[in-house]
Amino acid sequence: MIIVLRQGHPVAVAQVTQELEEHGYQVLPVFGVEKTIVCAVGGDEFKNVDFLEQIKAHEFVEDVLLITKPYKIVAKETVAGRSVVDVGGVKVGGDEVVMMAGPCTVESEEQVFVTAEAVSKAGAKILRGGAYKPSTSPYSFQGMGVPGLKILRQAADKYGMKVVTEVMDLRKIELVAQYADVLQIGARNMQNYDLLKEVGQARTPVLLKRGMTAKYEELLLAAEYIATGGNQAIMLCERGLRTFESHTRNMLDIGAVPVLHSLSHLPVVIDPSQGTGKRDLVASLSRAAVAAGADALIIEVHPNPDHAIKDGPQSMTIPQFVDMMPTLSKVAEAVGRWMATGRAVSVGE
Amino acid sequence: MIIVLRQGHPVAVAQVTQELEEHGYQVLPVFGVEKTIVCAVGGDEFKNVDFLEQIKAHEFVEDVLLITKPYKIVAKETVAGRSVVDVGGVKVGGDEVVMMAGPCTVESEEQVFVTAEAVSKAGAKILRGGAYKPSTSPYSFQGMGVPGLKILRQAADKYGMKVVTEVMDLRKIELVAQYADVLQIGARNMQNYDLLKEVGQARTPVLLKRGMTAKYEELLLAAEYIATGGNQAIMLCERGLRTFESHTRNMLDIGAVPVLHSLSHLPVVIDPSQGTGKRDLVASLSRAAVAAGADALIIEVHPNPDHAIKDGPQSMTIPQFVDMMPTLSKVAEAVGRWMATGRAVSVGE
Amino acid sequence: MIIVLRQGHPVAVAQVTQELEEHGYQVLPVFGVEKTIVCAVGGDEFKNVDFLEQIKAHEFVEDVLLITKPYKIVAKETVAGRSVVDVGGVKVGGDEVVMMAGPCTVESEEQVFVTAEAVSKAGAKILRGGAYKPSTSPYSFQGMGVPGLKILRQAADKYGMKVVTEVMDLRKIELVAQYADVLQIGARNMQNYDLLKEVGQARTPVLLKRGMTAKYEELLLAAEYIATGGNQAIMLCERGLRTFESHTRNMLDIGAVPVLHSLSHLPVVIDPSQGTGKRDLVASLSRAAVAAGADALIIEVHPNPDHAIKDGPQSMTIPQFVDMMPTLSKVAEAVGRWMATGRAVSVGE
Amino acid sequence: MIIVLRQGHPVAVAQVTQELEEHGYQVLPVFGVEKTIVCAVGGDEFKNVDFLEQIKAHEFVEDVLLITKPYKIVAKETVAGRSVVDVGGVKVGGDEVVMMAGPCTVESEEQVFVTAEAVSKAGAKILRGGAYKPSTSPYSFQGMGVPGLKILRQAADKYGMKVVTEVMDLRKIELVAQYADVLQIGARNMQNYDLLKEVGQARTPVLLKRGMTAKYEELLLAAEYIATGGNQAIMLCERGLRTFESHTRNMLDIGAVPVLHSLSHLPVVIDPSQGTGKRDLVASLSRAAVAAGADALIIEVHPNPDHAIKDGPQSMTIPQFVDMMPTLSKVAEAVGRWMATGRAVSVGE
Repeated sequence: MIIVLRQGHPVAVAQVTQELEEHGYQVLPVFGVEKTIVCAVGGDEFKNVDFLEQIKAHEFVEDVLLITKPYKIVAKETVAGRSVVDVGGVKVGGDEVVMMAGPCTVESEEQVFVTAEAVSKAGAKILRGGAYKPSTSPYSFQGMGVPGLKILRQAADKYGMKVVTEVMDLRKIELVAQYADVLQIGARNMQNYDLLKEVGQARTPVLLKRGMTAKYEELLLAAEYIATGGNQAIMLCERGLRTFESHTRNMLDIGAVPVLHSLSHLPVVIDPSQGTGKRDLVASLSRAAVAAGADALIIEVHPNPDHAIKDGPQSMTIPQFVDMMPTLSKVAEAVGRWMATGRAVSVGE
Repeated sequence: MIIVLRQGHPVAVAQVTQELEEHGYQVLPVFGVEKTIVCAVGGDEFKNVDFLEQIKAHEFVEDVLLITKPYKIVAKETVAGRSVVDVGGVKVGGDEVVMMAGPCTVESEEQVFVTAEAVSKAGAKILRGGAYKPSTSPYSFQGMGVPGLKILRQAADKYGMKVVTEVMDLRKIELVAQYADVLQIGARNMQNYDLLKEVGQARTPVLLKRGMTAKYEELLLAAEYIATGGNQAIMLCERGLRTFESHTRNMLDIGAVPVLHSLSHLPVVIDPSQGTGKRDLVASLSRAAVAAGADALIIEVHPNPDHAIKDGPQSMTIPQFVDMMPTLSKVAEAVGRWMATGRAVSVGE
Repeated sequence: MIIVLRQGHPVAVAQVTQELEEHGYQVLPVFGVEKTIVCAVGGDEFKNVDFLEQIKAHEFVEDVLLITKPYKIVAKETVAGRSVVDVGGVKVGGDEVVMMAGPCTVESEEQVFVTAEAVSKAGAKILRGGAYKPSTSPYSFQGMGVPGLKILRQAADKYGMKVVTEVMDLRKIELVAQYADVLQIGARNMQNYDLLKEVGQARTPVLLKRGMTAKYEELLLAAEYIATGGNQAIMLCERGLRTFESHTRNMLDIGAVPVLHSLSHLPVVIDPSQGTGKRDLVASLSRAAVAAGADALIIEVHPNPDHAIKDGPQSMTIPQFVDMMPTLSKVAEAVGRWMATGRAVSVGE
Repeated sequence: MIIVLRQGHPVAVAQVTQELEEHGYQVLPVFGVEKTIVCAVGGDEFKNVDFLEQIKAHEFVEDVLLITKPYKIVAKETVAGRSVVDVGGVKVGGDEVVMMAGPCTVESEEQVFVTAEAVSKAGAKILRGGAYKPSTSPYSFQGMGVPGLKILRQAADKYGMKVVTEVMDLRKIELVAQYADVLQIGARNMQNYDLLKEVGQARTPVLLKRGMTAKYEELLLAAEYIATGGNQAIMLCERGLRTFESHTRNMLDIGAVPVLHSLSHLPVVIDPSQGTGKRDLVASLSRAAVAAGADALIIEVHPNPDHAIKDGPQSMTIPQFVDMMPTLSKVAEAVGRWMATGRAVSVGE
């Protein structure tokens, strides 16, 4: 269960923790930005009604939520309605379907600025790009690092965008957060629990990618690791699963959208670029994602994908991306939402 | 390669076969409804240009198609544009996105008629329902057989619909075809090659379901087995894949729509009921399928799913189905197609 | 539950069926070679003790077995100890670990005779070889058919072996059974239920291959389909699973040996050739299979694998096979069993 | 390619690096304990023979190895024969098949000491046990931490064993290495590249577990990450894959033994406990692993598994473990190796 505490009662956490532990619970206090809550698992609140009443009776207890799922804070039952993650004013999880776009990897200032200008004009609001890359081979490009982060920040600022970029090394979270509006946890690190705990201490929104064969419950428990650190601005991202099929790089699990929405209040983002590995499939799957109810898309775009350092085959060209947007917007409207297209870009600072 | 022959040349097949075999080809003549073609594999037409010219020079040769894929007749290169499968006037593969709906299993006259009336009024044009069921257990219901086929036929006729139903036993193809407009080959039988060959001899359209871990190429080669029998009215159906995830029964591979469209001219049908196993996910995935470009949907609907003999959890209720249709129609329009909804049903004869 | 009937009571089946149906059971009588049994599912024998006593009290009832698993006849609980399948005197499931070997596909008399001589001298007792081949492509070799069956029979007879070969088409079961000692059901047909039912009517032992992503329970239910036809001489065969890994053709699930032994009394056969797709891995996995407790191995051997029509890469050369046998025999002894090696071959009649 | 440098040439690395970069190579110098090597990828040494000769001609170049695989240092071609990892005198990769055993998680001094005494008497030489646990849920036990490490060290010392234990947090490598003889990288962290790089800087042997759906090549590239840090004492560990089957927790890929041996010179360890998730299957799969050629086993044993904090169902009881060892030893001998059983334990200090 989750015990929501009122503000202004310094001893509340200690007292409620003691009572819970005496009744056999394991207790985890979570100091969030807005609220302090106490998560308690392992006891049997459904049998011991008296104890539950005792907890509720405390002046400092605002609410008690009984949640039978293994994840608590991210469970649908915890909040009324759906969560909206505010990325510096861009709202993910509301009526707008948000487009995140940009290159797989930051290669140069020109590459990022050209892409940012084009995608922002076409409707994208968050700029993606990797400055630290999880490469399967130690001999592959590992990313530009800080210079890459700076390029992303500058391009985003120039074109009125926000920045999402991956952090892999827990020692660099603070550094990356200086430049990024969203910290991405990659699929390979979805169960790197020390990284999750540290990101939970940050106050920057997180885009958590599903591992390539992670179950829904495992994804939600990974989100819970972050949430228990106090950071509850989490977006769940489906990016394709590993299967037996070799024609596509991964198999996009579009069912993740309604499933995750049924289990959690967190917004769901779809990555159709990683999800298929082929740029010619991205438009079709982007339409599917919006129709299924995704809250945002994250798409790889490159000015010259055939010369990209990484993931060229799955990067859309700029014209492909621009062409796709009006139809996406129509699909969004068909399902009762909206999507920005062709917005006037305020070039400048 | 495929050699398309002109009508009215009785010796053409024999002669071209002989020439091809002399040049190292394996040869398979295909006597289709409209045309006779000869499929030849194993030779090297790209190197031997003279021989190719010799073949083309025959008066009885209308065209020669060079196709490097392992499947030939069903390959995209074989026809200009996309194939439309005509199911007694209902066109699958054209601008309309066709809805097929009905119960998993035929249980009774009332069940089927109630369902057929409701789904046809809501826009469905083809009635689905199983009279022969591939049950994992020999102790489970194996289907009503012929009485079930009769119920399907009568209900479809009454509500102006066509019938799709599964055939499992190759000795029953002729029997099933007496009642059905479309012969369904189930996922478990996708590589039952003798069944495929026999269905290829029939002249009834076929709905070929992808095996639960079949590769795209294997699905297309299974279709090629049917096509080489002369039956080229084939619809490919994605119905969800088996994975590690146990929350859903299967994982719907929505990417199958653009992938199969890029490889083959055949229409692509999506089964979101089998594809997820949970009725509450079907509407979201149906929208995704239409947005991705599916040519038809096949959906399980039951008047009382909690009492269904089979697959109750994945069968939509009638109100769920009816509610879903208008939004599906809007999504179809958003992607440049259309879908029947609420059409006047001619209750007749 | 299973009701075992005594011989010589013609009305027993009818009477017990009626009583069971009156109590809500679905009933399936099974007329085996040795015994007649009645399988009943769907009732609640654990609650209705009086009814159980009533059934047991019949003079014609020899025994009543309560089995809670979805499969009954093939469940471990049904027989004391393990089943031994007698293949014309070769016992599979006893202390001996039986070797089945031969080419993937019958190509010629010479190929089969050379292989049969070599593998039988090295200890193999059952000759494998395909006369009807389940080819993914309709343009690939489909097998020699009856002439291939004849070659297998003659070679086996000459070298004192038995024959195992695949049957795909249910109309050919009788034909194949004229030449074969074991009918193989291939992985692609594991859920071809009409084929299973027909093979259940035969009185030839069956080698049932696990589908490429079949669950253990599905494999056992497929075996149950055969057993309910009255044919209980069934061997279960693990032949590798389809996974994400492309380095090997399939991934051999060696755990299938102890798992299937814990669930069923049927013998378990391992196919390390299909199980990996690479001949250099076969010896290592054969040793693993014997050590894990497999009752038999089935291995592809070809006199000249690089020129094999099918599956050359996974076919062992004759010297590889011969070299492997002595170590296999030692491993068998290490786990308390034995394996024939280098037995004198009676070249005769 | 790999350029092996002679000792005593301080400028060698800089000079060869410059030449390689001028010819289009990416260069990674590796300062190992025994040797300094330079790994170079991306150029085309097979075409430019002159350049290769130029490199070889340097006085400070001892050898040049051309390796076409994406991994270099861990590739089979890099060393003659197989690598032996020396764990404080226990040799993994030689004729002896080494047994590592102990509890999943360190729970108490008594639990570890009782287990260590029993498994060491039965032949185990390396004590396993988790002090930092990668728990799927943030509410589950995360391990005892340093007190757990101390218990492992003391128990191992008392019973003449070495210690293998997991490190998850790269900031704790030095700490864990103070107590452990082998650093385990868990399956979830196989592609946590920053952790791999840091472990590569350590000089403690590493047990690298394969991710739950990692390809062989990815595992070997993960090992290469460690090796390029200079730490080449790496053992590869197969611990079961995630599949569609729910009867077992994972599916042990026994084929990993011959496959990894064919690709790399590193020793291969099998974890049949994680590999199946059921203690009753562990003995059978241990025998299979030894027969297949595994260099070591790592097995979970608990004095009272039904009360274990974690992974009780897959932990063997002490009697099960003791009973298994003599047969394992026989299997080892059958394949030309040996395994310690019942060795006299020097209980000391």
